Amino acid sequence: MPVLQPIVNIAELLYQKGITDVVVSPGSRSAPLTLAVARHRHLRVRVMADERSACFVALGMALQSRRTVAVICTSGSAVYNLAPAVAEASFGQVPLLLLTADRPHEWLHQQDGQTINQVGIFGTHVKRSYDLPADYTHADARWFIERTLNEAITLSQLTPAGPVHVNVPLREPFYPTTDETFAYGPVRTIEALSAQPTLPTDSWHRLLTEWEQSERTLIAVGQLPYNTALLTVLRKLSEETGVVVVGEVVGNIPRNNVFITRTDTFLAGIGETNARALQPDLLLTIGNSFLTRNLKTFLRQYPAHRHWHIQPTIDHINDSFQSLTTLIPADPLAFLEKLFADVDYQRFLQGDDEDDDQQGFLNRWHHMDREATRLVEKTLAEPTQPLTDWLAVQRILDQLPDASILHLANSMPVRYANLCGLDERQQISVSSNRGVSGIDGCLSTAVGAALMTDKLVTLLIGDVAFFYDRNALWSAPVPPNLRIILLNNDSGHIFRIIDGPSRQPELETYFETPHGYTARNTAQDAGLTYIPCNSPGALGEILSDFFQPAPTAKLLELKTDKQANQDLFLSYKASVKAFQSR
Amino acid sequence: MPVLQPIVNIAELLYQKGITDVVVSPGSRSAPLTLAVARHRHLRVRVMADERSACFVALGMALQSRRTVAVICTSGSAVYNLAPAVAEASFGQVPLLLLTADRPHEWLHQQDGQTINQVGIFGTHVKRSYDLPADYTHADARWFIERTLNEAITLSQLTPAGPVHVNVPLREPFYPTTDETFAYGPVRTIEALSAQPTLPTDSWHRLLTEWEQSERTLIAVGQLPYNTALLTVLRKLSEETGVVVVGEVVGNIPRNNVFITRTDTFLAGIGETNARALQPDLLLTIGNSFLTRNLKTFLRQYPAHRHWHIQPTIDHINDSFQSLTTLIPADPLAFLEKLFADVDYQRFLQGDDEDDDQQGFLNRWHHMDREATRLVEKTLAEPTQPLTDWLAVQRILDQLPDASILHLANSMPVRYANLCGLDERQQISVSSNRGVSGIDGCLSTAVGAALMTDKLVTLLIGDVAFFYDRNALWSAPVPPNLRIILLNNDSGHIFRIIDGPSRQPELETYFETPHGYTARNTAQDAGLTYIPCNSPGALGEILSDFFQPAPTAKLLELKTDKQANQDLFLSYKASVKAFQSR
Repeated sequence: MPVLQPIVNIAELLYQKGITDVVVSPGSRSAPLTLAVARHRHLRVRVMADERSACFVALGMALQSRRTVAVICTSGSAVYNLAPAVAEASFGQVPLLLLTADRPHEWLHQQDGQTINQVGIFGTHVKRSYDLPADYTHADARWFIERTLNEAITLSQLTPAGPVHVNVPLREPFYPTTDETFAYGPVRTIEALSAQPTLPTDSWHRLLTEWEQSERTLIAVGQLPYNTALLTVLRKLSEETGVVVVGEVVGNIPRNNVFITRTDTFLAGIGETNARALQPDLLLTIGNSFLTRNLKTFLRQYPAHRHWHIQPTIDHINDSFQSLTTLIPADPLAFLEKLFADVDYQRFLQGDDEDDDQQGFLNRWHHMDREATRLVEKTLAEPTQPLTDWLAVQRILDQLPDASILHLANSMPVRYANLCGLDERQQISVSSNRGVSGIDGCLSTAVGAALMTDKLVTLLIGDVAFFYDRNALWSAPVPPNLRIILLNNDSGHIFRIIDGPSRQPELETYFETPHGYTARNTAQDAGLTYIPCNSPGALGEILSDFFQPAPTAKLLELKTDKQANQDLFLSYKASVKAFQSR
Repeated sequence: MPVLQPIVNIAELLYQKGITDVVVSPGSRSAPLTLAVARHRHLRVRVMADERSACFVALGMALQSRRTVAVICTSGSAVYNLAPAVAEASFGQVPLLLLTADRPHEWLHQQDGQTINQVGIFGTHVKRSYDLPADYTHADARWFIERTLNEAITLSQLTPAGPVHVNVPLREPFYPTTDETFAYGPVRTIEALSAQPTLPTDSWHRLLTEWEQSERTLIAVGQLPYNTALLTVLRKLSEETGVVVVGEVVGNIPRNNVFITRTDTFLAGIGETNARALQPDLLLTIGNSFLTRNLKTFLRQYPAHRHWHIQPTIDHINDSFQSLTTLIPADPLAFLEKLFADVDYQRFLQGDDEDDDQQGFLNRWHHMDREATRLVEKTLAEPTQPLTDWLAVQRILDQLPDASILHLANSMPVRYANLCGLDERQQISVSSNRGVSGIDGCLSTAVGAALMTDKLVTLLIGDVAFFYDRNALWSAPVPPNLRIILLNNDSGHIFRIIDGPSRQPELETYFETPHGYTARNTAQDAGLTYIPCNSPGALGEILSDFFQPAPTAKLLELKTDKQANQDLFLSYKASVKAFQSR
């Protein structure tokens, strides 16, 4: 048996445990792992030089495929370059398997190159951190490696999914000799069954009683993947029981005549009378983080009497509105479907008496949502306005191809998109790095997602996030189904939009940091079709062709003026203020 | 007192404790720190959007100025983007103060944006990690902040220097209101005196005895900053006592008729007879890591009877040649100067009798060094050869302006530069990220160094390291005294040079990763003067002008052919083999 056989077998274990894709960054210490996956005929391997981008690409691939994606990198600071994506995967609950090559530990602090303290390097930002042995002569060591990989992959997928770290110390020689056979040995996989959390009957009845007693029930949906079954049950709950369903673009809650999606507008600076009229007595939350600060502030200032948070497993007490009463370990979809079935059956037994209080509560939310829609539409309706980020986002979202995928970069694009919203009929699946909400890997994440689907993937991104992460376009072939729409206002424009920094003399120099870059050169270097645009008129024409299939990815750069962006936002804020003080 | 006064005062504390420079990445959570340093009239603040580059720029500034440089970033994954440079600063012993804004800890795992577990996030890669309180109403909290900053800055500079982390949880509001006065309060600095380690007399005498008894003494110099006093004492030791002084380009040991600098060539595959003739009985080492693998292998295979390692403080037992007998806590320069003085005085007392064995030992090393010089010169002397990386590096090093600064990126450039060497008369100060030896921040480090000096800073860098770190050129003004020389062979060329991967069919796809990029667009975007070159003839002409002062930084891109590079290296290796088997 070749010395490195247990390492070669890791590739076979990945495959047997259902991993199909690996992202590799070049290195010599990691060569045994690289060769093992590269030569495995069932694994797809992508190579990216910048480990930071590589790990975000893997994150995008895992988001899209909902499978664990493996990441291989060499020892030293390479490992730390994975960390930003690891943090996002941790809080965003994305399954990654981080295989980091290492020098055997006896070489730490012996002045050897690319040698840092890699054991447990990601701290609490991985679900678990393993450290393989450097010597495999003892059978127990080989058993340990095989068992560890089984556990690590299983753990990455176990709800809540997340990153798992396996540190792999490797001795030289790293490369097989030319006469050495290279084959995958038999491996042992250990199956781990999954189970659904099921509430005891008495708990369930107690919850049903609370539900029945509430006359102002509100379901708020945080970040969740696109899920039509979930949309169906939420719609039925609202239509048939009058419950208010509030959601956001990152929670894949689209606009229709049922869901409430304009909270960012109509809860901004809301007065006490209006707020009291909207205050729930029972709040159900599902999903991860909420985007809308105004919604969060409202739910903290006007807390529900009872707040249920439904999440598949209880790890932390997530009390983000400071009024949580009940944590419910359940799959949100299964919970809501059972809830609807039971409530519906009760209503059938009791005769379908309308709950006037609940219906009135729903009507008040719907009224506010419609008013907000009018306000936003009026803001963008001015016929002679210049091209602004917000107007552009509205036009783009309106013209997105049905059933395509939308990635929203952090900072302003995700906020503009939430202000605009998506129509339910478009069936757009929305994704955004809202685990940690960094700007650092949004482009790489979209590249990764596009690699895993034939559907069109459109990324809306601002200039700081785009240039920050442009290595996403450097070493992997950019998938032709990617469409990048760059809102280039030459600055970290969010600082001009939010209140505090816009009043400081340091705004431009220390916060916005204008750079003067356009993406023309970056697009050219990466072989993308580049389309610049700076007027609303041109945008409409461009978009109809932009989303057509093409042999290369495309980049549409919208040059907007930061002052025009700010002016539009200020006029919107003035309208909101006027609306709230009616 | 404004609520944030203790945070504002941090800027004044930095200044009072001798910090002059701060690198800031934009963020809102970090705004109180940003405003505090931006408004302080004695602090210079540079702004860079990409935190990874920002921290490497700070590292370069600290390397150049030998002062602690502060780094400010916002919360979340931004912090993790500092980590690659933190690792380099840790092993490279560079003083950095990392001020990371954070949400107050009660918000962790509450689905809030940009909130990760920042306490102790850098693990053992910082000298210490502090966590400030989020509330300052109690006087003890303010005392704690002031004392912590004093300790953190002191600690960063204490030998061995290194990065120190201060996590700064901050509550809203972050921005002063327009009517709020913004002033620095009086701060209390605590002076920490420094002391020199002094050996007890009996230890010193025991060492002197060992020294006197050795007839084959060798001093090997690892990575160290340029230091003429050190060169002087090393020269005197060799010239007057016959001790062998071995060094490398990263240790700032130049070529002259005294020092041995060609070990990478003449120790490659050395036979046992020759090796035994060069084996020391007493080895002294100073400095940090060694670059030359052949030297390290030789010193492990033919260990000295006694090995002294001289380092200012004992933290780890650094036994990199696996034969260490004595760790000596001393400043290397002070130790060698005292050693020379004592040995010289002994020789004066005893009459200046030549030590024939030591002199013979020195002669054998000098003979090998001269032979290696001839071999290398012959390798590069072929008149019709194409432009190769190695030839280019030789020409460039020969023409570097005297007393300028040379930064060597990791992977091949630093190795080529060591094969070529620098003449002592050039007085070039050499710097390279050899703490962890990553390619990830070499460009940023050179930018940082150039920001802190009026001297010319030349960076030799390969294409993978260059594009990896091109955000170095993005948001800070690139200093006009920077000269970037890019060896663009369109790949991670080192994998073709080293033995293992060059034999694998996966060489190009999984190791070299050719990308087809040239730096023309990157240079244009960053406003650099761009000069392409692809022949040895053109190079000579270009270089004479290239190093002249200019209003903007310049980038010279040398397009070389990877096959030609490989051929030259193979012919060199064949010559070395022939030389060793004479």
